[in-house]
Amino acid sequence: MSSVGVGHIALVGAGPGDPDLLTVRAARLIAEADVVVHDALVGAGVLALVRPDAELIDVGKRPGAGVAQEETNAILVRLANEGKRIVRLKGGDPFVFGRGGEEAVVLAAAGFACEIVPGITSAVAAPAAAGIPITYRGLAASFTVVTGHRQYGELPVNWAALAQAGGTIVILMGVAERGVIASALMVGGLGGDTPVAAIRLATTNRQVISRCRLDGLSDLDLESPATLVIGAVAALNVTEVAAAGAYAVDPC
Amino acid sequence: MSSVGVGHIALVGAGPGDPDLLTVRAARLIAEADVVVHDALVGAGVLALVRPDAELIDVGKRPGAGVAQEETNAILVRLANEGKRIVRLKGGDPFVFGRGGEEAVVLAAAGFACEIVPGITSAVAAPAAAGIPITYRGLAASFTVVTGHRQYGELPVNWAALAQAGGTIVILMGVAERGVIASALMVGGLGGDTPVAAIRLATTNRQVISRCRLDGLSDLDLESPATLVIGAVAALNVTEVAAAGAYAVDPC
Repeated sequence: MSSVGVGHIALVGAGPGDPDLLTVRAARLIAEADVVVHDALVGAGVLALVRPDAELIDVGKRPGAGVAQEETNAILVRLANEGKRIVRLKGGDPFVFGRGGEEAVVLAAAGFACEIVPGITSAVAAPAAAGIPITYRGLAASFTVVTGHRQYGELPVNWAALAQAGGTIVILMGVAERGVIASALMVGGLGGDTPVAAIRLATTNRQVISRCRLDGLSDLDLESPATLVIGAVAALNVTEVAAAGAYAVDPC
Repeated sequence: MSSVGVGHIALVGAGPGDPDLLTVRAARLIAEADVVVHDALVGAGVLALVRPDAELIDVGKRPGAGVAQEETNAILVRLANEGKRIVRLKGGDPFVFGRGGEEAVVLAAAGFACEIVPGITSAVAAPAAAGIPITYRGLAASFTVVTGHRQYGELPVNWAALAQAGGTIVILMGVAERGVIASALMVGGLGGDTPVAAIRLATTNRQVISRCRLDGLSDLDLESPATLVIGAVAALNVTEVAAAGAYAVDPC
């Protein structure tokens, strides 16, 4: 692993919350950075790894407030022009939503090639933290990760096709629209008894797991943000010893 | 981060290849393990972190050879009963294919709750290493990860529904069936000109990136294993300075 000199910019995934789930590369870059530009979803445990003398810039988008994307882009280009060692720290993985691709393009257009450091996305880590394998032989041979965030006023997802695809559905940023999403999936063919799990603050010591049926999702008491897992695997907890007898294990 | 005592078993994701893309927790557990039980896909750089005096057991499945799943399950239960510090090391993430869920169930049924340590899946890291964001505003608001591996003699995926879903499609273990998969997706409605990228040995110093159209995928010269990325984003390389002018950046 090489250390980095000045004039280095990395788009770094901060993982799901637990700082132990940073990659080795991410932890190194964060500790070496002159400036860390971070989102709202990056946890306190991760930010604690930033050098005390480094600059910390919060560009988190928050309901009705926060920093606009153009402003974030401009900040990144300015810092890159200053020759700083920059970590642009994004919750989860930099290319799983969160507009990391756009920021990389803006930087490339300004003449700066960034390093991309992938992170553990909550789409995978949150179910795992609840004992839910997002794929499981005989139950789910695929998984789809979608955003429940509106773009241009609409949910940019073909829910009927997803309902037919047969795999696990993982929804990020979908708490506010969970009723609309559940209805669309049921119209598309998913049964009302399809298992659902919701995981809040996954991998932190404040993690909360809720389970329900798809037809009960709109009534589930749930604060944003949470990861929603929809499909047969959402009923499992494969790390729970007491429950293990209930699962058929398919040999080969 | 706590160290672990004896009698600890962890299902650990080894990430895509580069040992710097292990999580901090995974690197710690590997270095402390008494025994590491690993798959064929775990790279040499990761295995180099195992203690010289630790036991290393290769349970890799290989075409026409390797260790059957029941035997792997039996090995894990035996080691757990011996009270060892065990790392079950799987390429990528332990719950993204690879039958980690089944191994956790077998262990739970034997009375052992495992720790699950997520890893960076190649489904996300391989495209990123090629400069491909698997989601991108206006191009892909979802991604689906599927296996191209036959189960019970069939490809267990509804390709027509996936073709209609509109997001990025990432296929792991799909090299052998790439012609069948491409045909099924085109029958389902994807255009023959849909961009495709194939990434071999992602994040290692032997990484190879190939790009083609969906109707050329069956003729692409490609060795297994590789990660296949299908969809509009597969044409991008957002970290390439020379190409940046070609991408529209959508403000907000």
